[in-house]
Amino acid sequence: MEKFYEASKAEGPIDFINVFDLEEAAKTVIPTGGYGYINSGAGDIFTYRENERAFNHKLIIPHVLKDVELPDTTTEFAGDKLTAPIIMAPVAAHGLANVAAEEASAKGVATFGTIYTASSYASRTLEEIRAAGGADAPQWFQFYMSKDDGINRDILDMAKRNGAKAIVLTADATVGGNRETDRRNGFTFPLAMPIVQAYQSGIGQTMDAVYGSSKQKLSPKDVEFIAKYSELPVYVKGVQSEEDVERALGSGANGIWVSNHGGRQLDGGPASFDSLQYVAEAVNGRAPIVFDSGVRRGQHIFKAIASGADLVAIGRPAIYGLALGGATGVIQVFEFFKRELEMVMQLAGAQTVEDIKKTKLRENNYC
Amino acid sequence: MEKFYEASKAEGPIDFINVFDLEEAAKTVIPTGGYGYINSGAGDIFTYRENERAFNHKLIIPHVLKDVELPDTTTEFAGDKLTAPIIMAPVAAHGLANVAAEEASAKGVATFGTIYTASSYASRTLEEIRAAGGADAPQWFQFYMSKDDGINRDILDMAKRNGAKAIVLTADATVGGNRETDRRNGFTFPLAMPIVQAYQSGIGQTMDAVYGSSKQKLSPKDVEFIAKYSELPVYVKGVQSEEDVERALGSGANGIWVSNHGGRQLDGGPASFDSLQYVAEAVNGRAPIVFDSGVRRGQHIFKAIASGADLVAIGRPAIYGLALGGATGVIQVFEFFKRELEMVMQLAGAQTVEDIKKTKLRENNYC
Amino acid sequence: MEKFYEASKAEGPIDFINVFDLEEAAKTVIPTGGYGYINSGAGDIFTYRENERAFNHKLIIPHVLKDVELPDTTTEFAGDKLTAPIIMAPVAAHGLANVAAEEASAKGVATFGTIYTASSYASRTLEEIRAAGGADAPQWFQFYMSKDDGINRDILDMAKRNGAKAIVLTADATVGGNRETDRRNGFTFPLAMPIVQAYQSGIGQTMDAVYGSSKQKLSPKDVEFIAKYSELPVYVKGVQSEEDVERALGSGANGIWVSNHGGRQLDGGPASFDSLQYVAEAVNGRAPIVFDSGVRRGQHIFKAIASGADLVAIGRPAIYGLALGGATGVIQVFEFFKRELEMVMQLAGAQTVEDIKKTKLRENNYC
Amino acid sequence: MEKFYEASKAEGPIDFINVFDLEEAAKTVIPTGGYGYINSGAGDIFTYRENERAFNHKLIIPHVLKDVELPDTTTEFAGDKLTAPIIMAPVAAHGLANVAAEEASAKGVATFGTIYTASSYASRTLEEIRAAGGADAPQWFQFYMSKDDGINRDILDMAKRNGAKAIVLTADATVGGNRETDRRNGFTFPLAMPIVQAYQSGIGQTMDAVYGSSKQKLSPKDVEFIAKYSELPVYVKGVQSEEDVERALGSGANGIWVSNHGGRQLDGGPASFDSLQYVAEAVNGRAPIVFDSGVRRGQHIFKAIASGADLVAIGRPAIYGLALGGATGVIQVFEFFKRELEMVMQLAGAQTVEDIKKTKLRENNYC
Repeated sequence: MEKFYEASKAEGPIDFINVFDLEEAAKTVIPTGGYGYINSGAGDIFTYRENERAFNHKLIIPHVLKDVELPDTTTEFAGDKLTAPIIMAPVAAHGLANVAAEEASAKGVATFGTIYTASSYASRTLEEIRAAGGADAPQWFQFYMSKDDGINRDILDMAKRNGAKAIVLTADATVGGNRETDRRNGFTFPLAMPIVQAYQSGIGQTMDAVYGSSKQKLSPKDVEFIAKYSELPVYVKGVQSEEDVERALGSGANGIWVSNHGGRQLDGGPASFDSLQYVAEAVNGRAPIVFDSGVRRGQHIFKAIASGADLVAIGRPAIYGLALGGATGVIQVFEFFKRELEMVMQLAGAQTVEDIKKTKLRENNYC
Repeated sequence: MEKFYEASKAEGPIDFINVFDLEEAAKTVIPTGGYGYINSGAGDIFTYRENERAFNHKLIIPHVLKDVELPDTTTEFAGDKLTAPIIMAPVAAHGLANVAAEEASAKGVATFGTIYTASSYASRTLEEIRAAGGADAPQWFQFYMSKDDGINRDILDMAKRNGAKAIVLTADATVGGNRETDRRNGFTFPLAMPIVQAYQSGIGQTMDAVYGSSKQKLSPKDVEFIAKYSELPVYVKGVQSEEDVERALGSGANGIWVSNHGGRQLDGGPASFDSLQYVAEAVNGRAPIVFDSGVRRGQHIFKAIASGADLVAIGRPAIYGLALGGATGVIQVFEFFKRELEMVMQLAGAQTVEDIKKTKLRENNYC
Repeated sequence: MEKFYEASKAEGPIDFINVFDLEEAAKTVIPTGGYGYINSGAGDIFTYRENERAFNHKLIIPHVLKDVELPDTTTEFAGDKLTAPIIMAPVAAHGLANVAAEEASAKGVATFGTIYTASSYASRTLEEIRAAGGADAPQWFQFYMSKDDGINRDILDMAKRNGAKAIVLTADATVGGNRETDRRNGFTFPLAMPIVQAYQSGIGQTMDAVYGSSKQKLSPKDVEFIAKYSELPVYVKGVQSEEDVERALGSGANGIWVSNHGGRQLDGGPASFDSLQYVAEAVNGRAPIVFDSGVRRGQHIFKAIASGADLVAIGRPAIYGLALGGATGVIQVFEFFKRELEMVMQLAGAQTVEDIKKTKLRENNYC
Repeated sequence: MEKFYEASKAEGPIDFINVFDLEEAAKTVIPTGGYGYINSGAGDIFTYRENERAFNHKLIIPHVLKDVELPDTTTEFAGDKLTAPIIMAPVAAHGLANVAAEEASAKGVATFGTIYTASSYASRTLEEIRAAGGADAPQWFQFYMSKDDGINRDILDMAKRNGAKAIVLTADATVGGNRETDRRNGFTFPLAMPIVQAYQSGIGQTMDAVYGSSKQKLSPKDVEFIAKYSELPVYVKGVQSEEDVERALGSGANGIWVSNHGGRQLDGGPASFDSLQYVAEAVNGRAPIVFDSGVRRGQHIFKAIASGADLVAIGRPAIYGLALGGATGVIQVFEFFKRELEMVMQLAGAQTVEDIKKTKLRENNYC
């Protein structure tokens, strides 16, 4: 591990064509350990790779003569008008990427005009994140529970105090996946985790130690507890099957978040996009669905929405933008996805986000 | 972008074994920006690559003892006798490849004896293209509509005046695809677009700007308008689904052109050859079908015709031939495809083009 | 093309582990043009490669406790006792590989104890081939017909005179495939073709010219003609479909030879092994089936026999053996296949060739 | 072959992240011939590679809110409490990897707390292996039968005398597979095989010679003989089909061992993991199932158990651990698998081994 961790201080416009450019450039400005932590996946990175490949399992048929012009990506969600159905995924420790950390990313996301999900393991306090986004910006709070319910109440109070509109319970990371890049790099977090400082300082800790300090034994009762105590909508994150949909909704969850943690947790499992169709069928309109893992293109967002997602979250690409351009970089990344989504909508004959939802993708029989 | 764009001036026989040789050689004579524009595809070039791979999804069974000798590739189409069911696809700006531009390609195609489709974004006037092909050569006109119907009427008048036998409405390019090679090369068109000069000069414009200046909001009414005003058969180009077949034929189209624009528009969509079977089933003999995208071999032409196409259009290979050998090169490329098609016909036991249409391909269960 | 073609003069034991070793070593002793002719395939070599890959489409289940020991590869075919159900495929111009040409290969095959199929385009006369094999060795004659029936009668007389026990009508090569390696090498045959000298000298001719000089317009009548005139069993070679099985058997063929000419003729067609199952179902025991194309391992032979073949023919590997070791090399190659077949039989629980025929392979669901 | 075979003398902790690290490092401490023998597979190593790839044919769905914490890998098997359902596969000649040979591996496995399967071709006597493991450690004896039943009785007596709790009859290696690496290396065993010295000294012998000296003609009668004479449970190893399940259980086998000998015997056959589901359906609870071949990750163990295995055996990874760290290395390798299995259990929502057995994997439709 680097002794003195020097994150990027960049702020300003980035020159890039696509997200893969960002990934490559980010590698040059983020210290090795931090980049490895952000970029890499679990085990043989089979599931990690499947996440991207899986989008080719369904094909968008270009449609013509559909009377479409200047497609509209805006969407209303839970009372908020979003610039696009693209939101910020919870990602730990933005300070690894940029010294401006969550203050820059929250500001960028708010400027773009969408939901920001603050991670429990953020490098900034929720007060700072709220202030950076501004009072009107929709923010959600991603929760890694403590083993101590007193601490959990305190953290939930903090989230409410800072205007969180929903609590996202990450349930697929009760232990760390076998992220071998971190082990090869000897990576430990160089930065504090102020939000959860009551149970975890963060500094000098491995990812495994951090996860180990949080609650492993998650159950439907935890969803009930959070919902009841916070009186906020609860999203269960990490759902990939009918069974888990029922367990989550049955315990009072208000939303389902399909994810495999970006391929960082259980290797040898399905691509998140492949799981989406199972989940969407099971949910069957009973709750909103958020989707993440593997999104690198506007066409991926289109495919996810056409497969049942209401919102699509992006993680790594935004963090690369943060590393390379601070708040401005984050905005650019969201604009990139919006621009590609608009192009896809035009070519696929979808004027609105509702039109995307009605779009039928074609199964790819040859992959 | 190159400051002074110096296209090839080649005219004369080329030495080549196959189309991949041409692609490689063309790269050495076409300036970088122009070559990138001609050669490349959209996004992650998934669909671009699928276009070629998809031909392996169906297999030609060699047939023996079928009493075949010197197979006959000629076909009659709409009153014209064609040397082969292989026609010239509309390609913008032939001047990028050869200073002789569309005059050379139109001459070459006419000499070979098949249909030439002139692009709205040609580097030559329709008068010049008509003159180069000669009065008897069948020419079609590919139309990118203006937002102004007065201009559209003028362009259609021009096409009729110059003997166009059909209007091809390209409907899958109402915005440009994410052609990243062009962005990396900073490509802008170095040449004028005389046919559409009433709405677009072309010079110094990016592809996105060119598409942006044309009409985005295409609808069935546009097909009706063109058919009524021009009194010519209208082909809708970019059709890949049953739904679009119905919309096109329902609005008065006389022909269907299956294409995904050579993988240059919507990445993440199906291979054009895979879409052909859906389209052919939907058309069910109600209209002629033209097919393009990914054709590099005589066997591809055979497979497309056996899958329902009446005519197969080639684009990039002919442009490489134009770059390397002018009109002569274009003829050679068409002769190459004809020669390979004859070989395939002989080995597959098809004496005539009608025999190809009756041929049943075998599904490839292992790809 | 090499001006003076110097084929190998090798005679004696070769040191090799498998057939791929032979392929590599043969490249160093056969002149470039000749090696290219022998080794290469048609077009994009898709079908060529599929020929080998296709064997993985079916899996041999190892069977235990089957009471097997020292499995017996011998088989009786049409009155001859063969050392193994492995025969020599017809291959043109053995003189390209070794100056001893068909005299060495016929001798090697006879010593091993199986059927030798002499090619019409052999570098030696049938008299020489017969003499080299010896009077008792089973030899078949592969026939490329002349356009002149008088010549055809003469050639058939010659075959009968030299003890041919069957006539193999190669029907899948009425024109040459697009063998681009030959074109790149400027390959022409450096050697005479004495058997067909009445219609083709061979020397200085391209493969296309040679095929062009033979009869293209093959039909069921040709099978009838050969069967009637020669009074020998006729095998139609190049059959890959039910339709062709019926046409061949309906015109008096006595055997079916499944082959795609080693991937040298129609690229974009099925692997020969994949076609075998269609053919075997169609033949349904009415005639013996010979199989070739892509055989490189004993397991391939086992799989072909388990899929319906009575005999499996090998071509290129034997020619590599010929180049590297003359008659001795040819024997070694046949011994290699026999040895691997024995091992597979032992491990798959098959004591006899009849046991192989009764073996059920498992479909590979994952390729 | 190396003249003086110098195996590793290592004993102590190894630094490694995963099994592929071990494979690479082991190559540097094991002499070439020995490493080739241990590491390589048969023929084109198709089946060898399929063994690992096949685990991707089934996917573990991460499950959330399952109330799991500190999963328990212990399992009871035939009266023994095992630390995990992971046992030592029989592997010949541990002396190739480490001079401490089976004494170190038996000690390591006993320390970890699971079953050790001693190979007939061990480099140590059963007395030494028993002593190294300790009197309470569960040991099984893998049997390669002699052609002489007197010798077989002596060997079985020896096994019983040394506390073997089961006899594993390896039935898939009645001849050696075509292990070409051994042939290229000219590998012969440099060490004695004391257990079978009555029929095979081992020293200076090829693998083919060793297998040749054992009994080929295995049949159900041999299972009956072993069961009756030894009065121990008999496992038949190498079963991959319903047919063989019936033959084994019908002749008195008490357990089924699914294996393809690590891809070392019959190339062109199915992956062992793919066979497991066929076997598990056929066994249908009538007997315990042991699984091996291709296990490199905790997720593989999870998938095998979820597919019907009761115990999963590992071979090569343990031998690499032996080479690099002696008994300590062996323990570390087993600990590695246990640790990964625990992580997978936690993330898949399985508290116990019984929970794994109830887990339903998802078919991977895209491979």
